[in-house]
Amino acid sequence: MALPLNPHMARTAMPPVMEARRWLAEARFTPDRPLINVSQAAPVDPPPLPLREALAEAALNDPDAHLYGPVLGLPDLREEIARQWSAAYGGGIAPAQVAITSGCNQAFVAIMATLAAAGDEVILPTPWYFNHKMWLDMQGVTAVPLPTGPDLLPDPDRAAALITARSRAIVLVSPNNPGGAEYPAETLRAFFELARSRGIALIVDETYRDFDSRVGAPHDLFADPDWAGTLIHLYSFSKAYRLTGHRVGAIVADAGQLAEVEKFLDTVAICPNQLGQRGALWGMRNLGQWVAGERAEILDRRAAITQGFPRLNGWRLLGCGAYFAYVEHPFAEGSDALARRMVHEAAVLMLPGTMFMPGDDPAGQRQLRVAFANIDRAGIAQLFDRLAGLTG
Amino acid sequence: MALPLNPHMARTAMPPVMEARRWLAEARFTPDRPLINVSQAAPVDPPPLPLREALAEAALNDPDAHLYGPVLGLPDLREEIARQWSAAYGGGIAPAQVAITSGCNQAFVAIMATLAAAGDEVILPTPWYFNHKMWLDMQGVTAVPLPTGPDLLPDPDRAAALITARSRAIVLVSPNNPGGAEYPAETLRAFFELARSRGIALIVDETYRDFDSRVGAPHDLFADPDWAGTLIHLYSFSKAYRLTGHRVGAIVADAGQLAEVEKFLDTVAICPNQLGQRGALWGMRNLGQWVAGERAEILDRRAAITQGFPRLNGWRLLGCGAYFAYVEHPFAEGSDALARRMVHEAAVLMLPGTMFMPGDDPAGQRQLRVAFANIDRAGIAQLFDRLAGLTG
Repeated sequence: MALPLNPHMARTAMPPVMEARRWLAEARFTPDRPLINVSQAAPVDPPPLPLREALAEAALNDPDAHLYGPVLGLPDLREEIARQWSAAYGGGIAPAQVAITSGCNQAFVAIMATLAAAGDEVILPTPWYFNHKMWLDMQGVTAVPLPTGPDLLPDPDRAAALITARSRAIVLVSPNNPGGAEYPAETLRAFFELARSRGIALIVDETYRDFDSRVGAPHDLFADPDWAGTLIHLYSFSKAYRLTGHRVGAIVADAGQLAEVEKFLDTVAICPNQLGQRGALWGMRNLGQWVAGERAEILDRRAAITQGFPRLNGWRLLGCGAYFAYVEHPFAEGSDALARRMVHEAAVLMLPGTMFMPGDDPAGQRQLRVAFANIDRAGIAQLFDRLAGLTG
Repeated sequence: MALPLNPHMARTAMPPVMEARRWLAEARFTPDRPLINVSQAAPVDPPPLPLREALAEAALNDPDAHLYGPVLGLPDLREEIARQWSAAYGGGIAPAQVAITSGCNQAFVAIMATLAAAGDEVILPTPWYFNHKMWLDMQGVTAVPLPTGPDLLPDPDRAAALITARSRAIVLVSPNNPGGAEYPAETLRAFFELARSRGIALIVDETYRDFDSRVGAPHDLFADPDWAGTLIHLYSFSKAYRLTGHRVGAIVADAGQLAEVEKFLDTVAICPNQLGQRGALWGMRNLGQWVAGERAEILDRRAAITQGFPRLNGWRLLGCGAYFAYVEHPFAEGSDALARRMVHEAAVLMLPGTMFMPGDDPAGQRQLRVAFANIDRAGIAQLFDRLAGLTG
């Protein structure tokens, strides 16, 4: 006997990070050439000690840290985000326009569930973030690919031509995963005006905003008094404070839409976990300077990539920013096969462009994503050596 | 401007527990008559100190407790569940047949997402658990109500008549929320055989199994060598160890189906939070005797209800078990209006039967759920006094 299977789920791809981990199971690594794993954007170290101490203190002495809390999150954390974001973006964000989620993937699916049903369409620039595509597939929502240009930036005019009566949203990720591109403020503004004029949502996933190389607000959309009629902003606490394992993210959106999000989150999560929320709040209140240091280190790694990469024969750096470089390889084989071969021949794990592209777009087979944030300058030099040693 | 709205989401009810909390906002309570809140099945005290200490220790000294982990959960926790459940149910459960989720609501939605798409049907005995109904509504899946008898037990023959070509699953909750009924092993066996013969899934949500009044395994379904072709078991760590705020639940199901669940959870959660999983594992290894004491206390409160309730004029106790009593009130007004009136006139908050029933079933207006687990014998006596004081 077999259980019934939802055909949308059957058509949804396997999680790429899991899939790539399976390749490792068949590989052998030696102590003098250990694996360089640049497959996932995830801190490999725990949060700084004072934050761990704050979590331990809450676990011991704050009874509420173990009980159910409000579906849309800890009121103090919603308030802190509203306050800090309003200042940072020069706009008006109320606590009622903030919801806390169990990570930023959940922020995306929760808001998307309120916008789009099976048969609807959502526009995603390619290369796209695979979990966005997976959610749309599972829900029977059509992901409409918007190919980006050579600079990996999406073109609002090209997007305009893709909007139909079934369109519900355009989703942008800036700084981009997987492309690394930092979208200019005027690009975001143009997409905002486009979405507003066509009555659809503009979702801007700013998971990596703490590592943007630019100074100041990355856009001025929150300064628009009517931002909430169009803009939805997503954020993650995983990267800035190394809280990946605690699952804390956020949605900033219209308060009425968040009442719909509340139905979804009540059913899917009941509430975000309480300790993680306390960790995020402690981080926001105490770790500003520490995050600035983290950012400086990431920007230094980024510089190591942009300086060293052009010396690699035949490879091209298409985009580089936040945690990611997006690159073109010089080999005849497709990136799918190459990524597997690199595990064995170079002890390097990175994800092929095919995991970020529609199956019918040949560009994916020429591209790879390098999640470089977890390796330091020495590791990046080693990575270059190993790539240089690969033969075609 | 307004954002687009998914019509399935618009049709989904507000979360009842949130809704009921809103009634409280308008009420006044005095120190000599504080609110008796029997609206939600949630511990009001934190976990025992040794478990809080274990969580604090992990937060401080276990770096992995802060990082991403496997999508389907901590391997040690999956193994511990497989081992303890195999022993408790007298069946063969492998670690690969266990997935950890961010709470038991998420266990339900994750497995249901793999079974049913929009247009499919799922059979739920009534009164049902509202979050089950909400998820089906959001997904455009039809919840087919299966009215239970006077003992609140579902009838397999009646269920058989409801199965169509679009049916994907039958969902049972035992001990039941909201009804309190402990389903006899033969009832569960009959539903298992029915589901197997019709090629659909039988989901048994055993969130409250640690508080079942019966000794030994509540069913023998895991002893069937082919259980995984039909049976899906759901569990929550929230109640036994008072870990509600940590969000840890579990699915026991066919390993192939869990590969589909992995896609869903990767996209919706990435992984369950790591500290909560460590807390659950610590509890499973160390708190067996403590949980036995918790169970004895809950069973004593249950006895207080079954002894005292029949003395209440005109009220009827329809079901009582685990955390819940499900009751019929003697008043002319509907339970919707009565529940609101009780907040003001009796300082008692309970949920009306209408929140657990299809809108067209008049029984909901005569019924109420009492989540009595959070009040002790003295509180239960007070509750009776206040109900006795209500006038029609």
